[in-house]
Amino acid sequence: MNNFVFQNPTKIYFGKGSISNLVAELSKVGPRVLLTYGGGSIKKNGIYNAAISSLAKANKTVYELSGIMPNPRKEKVYQGIDICKTNNVDFILAVGGGSVIDCSKFIAAGAKTDRDFWQSFLVNQEDCYDAIPLASILTLAGTGSEMDAGGVISDFENNLKLHYGHPLLFPKFSILDPEYTYSLPKEQLVYGSIDAISHILEVYFSKPDESNLSDDLAEAILKNLITNLDVALKNHDDYIARSNLMWCSTLAINGLISLGKEGDWMSHEIEHALSAFYDIPHGAGLAIVHPNYLMHVYKSAIPKFAKFASNIFGISSSTLDEEGRARAGIIALSNYFKQIGAPTTLGEVNIPSSEIQKIAKTVNLFNTSYARKFSLKDIESILVKSINHLEN
Amino acid sequence: MNNFVFQNPTKIYFGKGSISNLVAELSKVGPRVLLTYGGGSIKKNGIYNAAISSLAKANKTVYELSGIMPNPRKEKVYQGIDICKTNNVDFILAVGGGSVIDCSKFIAAGAKTDRDFWQSFLVNQEDCYDAIPLASILTLAGTGSEMDAGGVISDFENNLKLHYGHPLLFPKFSILDPEYTYSLPKEQLVYGSIDAISHILEVYFSKPDESNLSDDLAEAILKNLITNLDVALKNHDDYIARSNLMWCSTLAINGLISLGKEGDWMSHEIEHALSAFYDIPHGAGLAIVHPNYLMHVYKSAIPKFAKFASNIFGISSSTLDEEGRARAGIIALSNYFKQIGAPTTLGEVNIPSSEIQKIAKTVNLFNTSYARKFSLKDIESILVKSINHLEN
Repeated sequence: MNNFVFQNPTKIYFGKGSISNLVAELSKVGPRVLLTYGGGSIKKNGIYNAAISSLAKANKTVYELSGIMPNPRKEKVYQGIDICKTNNVDFILAVGGGSVIDCSKFIAAGAKTDRDFWQSFLVNQEDCYDAIPLASILTLAGTGSEMDAGGVISDFENNLKLHYGHPLLFPKFSILDPEYTYSLPKEQLVYGSIDAISHILEVYFSKPDESNLSDDLAEAILKNLITNLDVALKNHDDYIARSNLMWCSTLAINGLISLGKEGDWMSHEIEHALSAFYDIPHGAGLAIVHPNYLMHVYKSAIPKFAKFASNIFGISSSTLDEEGRARAGIIALSNYFKQIGAPTTLGEVNIPSSEIQKIAKTVNLFNTSYARKFSLKDIESILVKSINHLEN
Repeated sequence: MNNFVFQNPTKIYFGKGSISNLVAELSKVGPRVLLTYGGGSIKKNGIYNAAISSLAKANKTVYELSGIMPNPRKEKVYQGIDICKTNNVDFILAVGGGSVIDCSKFIAAGAKTDRDFWQSFLVNQEDCYDAIPLASILTLAGTGSEMDAGGVISDFENNLKLHYGHPLLFPKFSILDPEYTYSLPKEQLVYGSIDAISHILEVYFSKPDESNLSDDLAEAILKNLITNLDVALKNHDDYIARSNLMWCSTLAINGLISLGKEGDWMSHEIEHALSAFYDIPHGAGLAIVHPNYLMHVYKSAIPKFAKFASNIFGISSSTLDEEGRARAGIIALSNYFKQIGAPTTLGEVNIPSSEIQKIAKTVNLFNTSYARKFSLKDIESILVKSINHLEN
């Protein structure tokens, strides 16, 4: 294994009814709390009332920021920073999925500096020196923001969707109740799961390729996720499936499986460009881009891709050579995304092929783990491949 | 998955040369440091000098406690507590394997209370309110003490070997350099690995049995461990094998694979009784006891044991029924321990069968996950089974 440094301090309360720990945790933080959430579904399913009741029991003064939507925008972060600065907010409680938690992380960091959060953190990637402590109540499995130190914010005026991470942005605690995900539409179950699958693959298909424990753990999580997603798609309220899916999504990006690995993240970069222009669901963009990205780079690591095909999709046909199995594994991945109801072509999310050049120009051309020197042409080629469903 | 609460704050510096992080970490702690270690092997392989040099660069006043041996004794803990109280020690740096780290944890806790550490923590299992912060430099993979909050101490006068754990006892940081394990005798490589295997099995073979991510991760770690132990036994200095083994041992007991599981730990309890009387290596005792314990309880969970046989040892013969495969898996485990050079019978570690009743009486008869009501007769039966090598 390559060298690594690892520390993840987030405390996880996992399981049905685990919101019962909220009052005790709130008793450890300051009196003024900002409650952040999305479009209001938490008011329908009772989670809002449960949170408000715990905040009241813990004698907190509560400020609210609602309406944080998927692909959260920088304007929403400014709004939150303003509330925090005006009211000397001590603590942020994010209730929702990754969008709400991500947005809250940048409110937390932005409220403790005079610098402009967008320019300083997301554009310039400057260091963060202080942040309001935050916690989360997770209602949607996928992004893993509940146990990681990063987040993504969009600037739709300039068609930018950027990532930033810092150890000060780990949630102090996160409450993960799988029953909270029962009421989500099927689409969100699928897209959240694809996001988690993509997180696993970004790391798994990065160097080094040698036998290592991180890759073995990645395969175990990926197989469990696929197995339990199949169950949850048939029975939305299957607790065992939902609890496994929720914990798979968290472990996919809490640092564990990237230890000793370089990471890649080029598929995420390309998807961020797509959704910065078209505001499509992140999981939909990944379902389109990730298999095509892998098909673009697999030749640098054929044995690893053949191993993936065999261990994840059971492709070990002796009629295929190693490269054939490598390709078949990538196609199986794309077919799997299609089978569970995700789009696998740009046309399905109404992105015309005439826009490819414009989109490609905004993608960060950093090095990828397998294809060290990535050019604008490479990005364009991957997007052109994404016009039609991947076939051998 | 069952409900769980999880937090593990230890910072890990992993890989060759990672001791280079020591000075920076020491700069964050107080000026008076107790350095703890074992029989002096760290003076031969250069690790002692490297630690002393970092302590000097960080301008620390260093006190030393050496001679902490396997199955660390309570007398050694009292000695360390005395040094800490007399000199107002601010920080403890443990350099060694699990014995040194375990002993240091109880020095850390005992130095911050007027209570007797042995009676209060290990016998009465009382709460710990304060502890001197500690860190470790690991030289032997196996116990996992470098990233967990517990430890085991022996009282040989009264033939007791007891465990205690508390979140205050997590190391602040641990330095894991796989190259430090090159110089160990083969026996310690084998026994450390068996300890880690046993940690995995104590949790894997506990309820619930339903498909869950923790068990999938446990299988992944176990398979990686067996694969890499085979390599390391052939080539002691294989870095890839050694690094995987080291990280496997840490993850086997850092909390990850026990999330949502009950845990069992009866094999460890029986082994502790054996080594409290006979001071045998922990890994040797586990190699003898654990398969016999599993053979005693497998009937309550035949499908799980058959799954283990198939996924770990590839036993899926259609000539065996499910129970036959379950039994074959346990026998394969015992044969594996024998094959890698561990004892699998009491006679091999010079424990006469005439002592079984005496030893059995000291074992904690708490509930086990599968065989809820465990009696003295059960323990005796397992120890009687341990006279001969396990056979079908």
